[in-house]
Amino acid sequence: MVAMAAVAAVMRWRLLLALSAAGLGALGVPQPPNILLLLMDDMGWGDLGVYGEPSRETPNLDRMAAEGMLFPNFYTANPLCSPSRAALLTGRLPIRNGFYTTNGQARNAYTPQEVVGGIPDTELLLPKLLKKAGYVSKIVGKWHLGHRPQFHPLRHGFDEWFGSPNCHFGPYDNRARPNIPVYRDWEMVGRFYEEFPIDLKTGEANLTQIYLQEALDFIKRQQAAQRPFFLYWAIDATHAPVYASKPFLGTSQRGRYGDAVREIDDSVGKILTLLQDLKITKDTFVFFTSDNGAALISAPKQGGSNGPFLCGKQTTFEGGMREPAIVWWPGHIATGQVSHQLGSIMDLFTTSLSLAGLEPPSDRVIDGLDLLPSMLQGQLVDRPIFYYRGNTLMAVTLGQYKAHFWTWTNSWEEFKQGIDFCPGQNVSGVTTHTQEEHTKLPLVFHLGRDPGEKYPLSFASTEYLDVLRRITPVVQQHQEALVPGQPQLNVCNQAVMNWTPPGCEKLGKCLTPPESVPKKCFWPH
Amino acid sequence: MVAMAAVAAVMRWRLLLALSAAGLGALGVPQPPNILLLLMDDMGWGDLGVYGEPSRETPNLDRMAAEGMLFPNFYTANPLCSPSRAALLTGRLPIRNGFYTTNGQARNAYTPQEVVGGIPDTELLLPKLLKKAGYVSKIVGKWHLGHRPQFHPLRHGFDEWFGSPNCHFGPYDNRARPNIPVYRDWEMVGRFYEEFPIDLKTGEANLTQIYLQEALDFIKRQQAAQRPFFLYWAIDATHAPVYASKPFLGTSQRGRYGDAVREIDDSVGKILTLLQDLKITKDTFVFFTSDNGAALISAPKQGGSNGPFLCGKQTTFEGGMREPAIVWWPGHIATGQVSHQLGSIMDLFTTSLSLAGLEPPSDRVIDGLDLLPSMLQGQLVDRPIFYYRGNTLMAVTLGQYKAHFWTWTNSWEEFKQGIDFCPGQNVSGVTTHTQEEHTKLPLVFHLGRDPGEKYPLSFASTEYLDVLRRITPVVQQHQEALVPGQPQLNVCNQAVMNWTPPGCEKLGKCLTPPESVPKKCFWPH
Repeated sequence: MVAMAAVAAVMRWRLLLALSAAGLGALGVPQPPNILLLLMDDMGWGDLGVYGEPSRETPNLDRMAAEGMLFPNFYTANPLCSPSRAALLTGRLPIRNGFYTTNGQARNAYTPQEVVGGIPDTELLLPKLLKKAGYVSKIVGKWHLGHRPQFHPLRHGFDEWFGSPNCHFGPYDNRARPNIPVYRDWEMVGRFYEEFPIDLKTGEANLTQIYLQEALDFIKRQQAAQRPFFLYWAIDATHAPVYASKPFLGTSQRGRYGDAVREIDDSVGKILTLLQDLKITKDTFVFFTSDNGAALISAPKQGGSNGPFLCGKQTTFEGGMREPAIVWWPGHIATGQVSHQLGSIMDLFTTSLSLAGLEPPSDRVIDGLDLLPSMLQGQLVDRPIFYYRGNTLMAVTLGQYKAHFWTWTNSWEEFKQGIDFCPGQNVSGVTTHTQEEHTKLPLVFHLGRDPGEKYPLSFASTEYLDVLRRITPVVQQHQEALVPGQPQLNVCNQAVMNWTPPGCEKLGKCLTPPESVPKKCFWPH
Repeated sequence: MVAMAAVAAVMRWRLLLALSAAGLGALGVPQPPNILLLLMDDMGWGDLGVYGEPSRETPNLDRMAAEGMLFPNFYTANPLCSPSRAALLTGRLPIRNGFYTTNGQARNAYTPQEVVGGIPDTELLLPKLLKKAGYVSKIVGKWHLGHRPQFHPLRHGFDEWFGSPNCHFGPYDNRARPNIPVYRDWEMVGRFYEEFPIDLKTGEANLTQIYLQEALDFIKRQQAAQRPFFLYWAIDATHAPVYASKPFLGTSQRGRYGDAVREIDDSVGKILTLLQDLKITKDTFVFFTSDNGAALISAPKQGGSNGPFLCGKQTTFEGGMREPAIVWWPGHIATGQVSHQLGSIMDLFTTSLSLAGLEPPSDRVIDGLDLLPSMLQGQLVDRPIFYYRGNTLMAVTLGQYKAHFWTWTNSWEEFKQGIDFCPGQNVSGVTTHTQEEHTKLPLVFHLGRDPGEKYPLSFASTEYLDVLRRITPVVQQHQEALVPGQPQLNVCNQAVMNWTPPGCEKLGKCLTPPESVPKKCFWPH
């Protein structure tokens, strides 16, 4: 089986070589393309000009789309950061790779610094697999797959890291809660709000500029060394607290959130320009997307836009999981294309392996598809999109139809405290504040006619019955075959926080951890 | 004063000549550019790919935008058909040109066939003014400024007409209510649902194809005659009941509404191609927009999308009045531009006159601006947008700020009967079902940060006070100087309906009118 897979991989790579004029590596042998994944944080579908944002302040990303291919129907694997990132790097749903909780039903969970869990050693991450094809891999920005030593990105295949293990929340007092460390490779080099300041009042921070320089520097070094690279640029300026550097502050029509978007757009432009200057655009596959929908709880000052879609981050409505997605690979992917392929963030795993001439692991279920046929030949593959919230399959999309088996936004209790995932929106019986089960009679929407999920199909219609007939076996098959992974996000402990990251002693920045008291994490929604 | 205006007109035209390489007319003298206004019916801001419609089924319009200039902040003058069309053709707010009612406060009114009123003789319409510069004018499609003889478009400056005086509602029994006639020039040539069939069950109608042929034929004839033309292409396939011709039915991901949009997009493509084939693109100014926001009461099967904006047709929220707008004039307007000029449908009046080298009438208030400086030199002019509903100033936008002086969607009574102008949307205190006055303390939104009008500024904020300081004098000045026109939409009478349109006797299609009983029109919202 392994040998078969290897043969298939070689054949696939030869096919790809025939399609692409691959460059020659240091050893004079053909080299697979570089892979550049630009992953945004809490950026919504509606935040780019090309997706209809009225201020149209993303000329570089709009140009990237005009020169590449746009996916209007591209989905993340979870409406929250950590699980969606785990899904991207493993090609597997969070319910398989362990990035979920069983502490409550349908609860969103992630990796704040008190979480004990993280990416299991049994999971195979993309950079580790790409090593087989000679890739050098770097993560710039937010890791978010666990901050304890065994979860370190360099233990899971990355060769370099500049960034943070957790969100840039803070500032903290370093007594009850430490500030989040910033790492270079194995060791911390400082902490947010200390060596890496973020001014919450003005919104000023130089982090996007630093992350940009890290990307440009890495690209130049790998190009000089003639080694194929995988760069995972996981920046976080659009996650609250949103920030921008001084030259961008106050420049957007959209306020501080827009300033952050403008700086990101400018940075993407600089990265693509570098690829052009280095004459490696044909050898570099670039994909832009986001980890989940815009955080409407932070809007309008610190949150983005999900365009015409319902609700946002934390929910399994379209606003929570449909993402901006652009692929750019001049000379391979025709310019100005739109693909209506239902795409998933997990496809970036499988597609990247395919670009490297590798097969996905055959010893486990991989949920990602190879999107190269869609990108290169315009193929459309019928496939379901599963919308999970924690341990619960909330909804599925197949073709134009989406069926909701469970609905809820958050609890009445939270909602009454002002926590609203659907501000200004209220679809009766759909944006519910109790967990409503519809497994026997799913709520079905036609996303072409009704992208905003406002008009459920009539249960009595032929259309409804036809949809159910198609969707039911797909869901049954999925659920019957599903073996959930060990849930990683159940246990929390103040003692595991970032008190003593590696390297802290050199900097004199080690803190005193409290007594170890493991307890069940509390996930309110 | 008249002499002064004439001198200014000539100077302006010379300036324009310097800017544009104008063609030579039949007499060998320079000819002003042709003007082609493509006015859609109930099409929403979010219905085009370039404005973020997820199915992206408008390649021709998207290309038109890529080759021209897009206006993301372009407004109609009223959230309903007739008043917005009267505003376009007069350059004046409906409150001035009489297209409103005083039968109730803040009531939307239009011209169903029982309305007695229409466009007053005292109003000067664009085609009449363009005659001075030698233009031949044609209206194709819906007139909607009154159907009684004195309101006929050929009495107000148009030289040709093919289309209907009213909406294509029906079918009627021709006893209680006649089917709407279709005119060619002075006389009717048939009626909807009779000689011009619309199949309500399948949605099939050939009307867009007929309107397309009328446009192509007119353009070819005027080009052959070497006369500058004004073509007002006011088609209605996207107004419920929406329709498409057979080759387009069932082709859209968006259902029947999308089929109509696809046929329109295809038709626009054919019109632009003809201009290219005739080599008159440099001599033809083309503008695409819509009369009001998408009719969400007809969604999802018969209504469009207002993208991220609040509510739709009938309301003075952004969804009711912000419109798609594209200008295309190769060789004059640079490609791929976006203008954040606040634009108005009334600007098409003034801009068209400017293109013709004419000054707007100096004996009355004209609300439209000349947009040529924005289009040709990228200028931005600070100007207010007034949002009226009937006789009431509901809101005003100045720069990025919008202040609501009155809010309501429709009455509780209507709402409880299922008439919902904001389906799935509910912004507390904003989408009200009673007429709420805020004149003393307007609700203010920042449309850049919050295009969806979900987060009113805090009354206590400095920002709020600053905005009020800027907006208050603008509104005061407007209201103090305002002389409302004679309201045209107060009186209804079954006897004035289309029983005996001119030409009916030749076709044997005259009907028997009932007794004349004038009464106050009832406008529920």
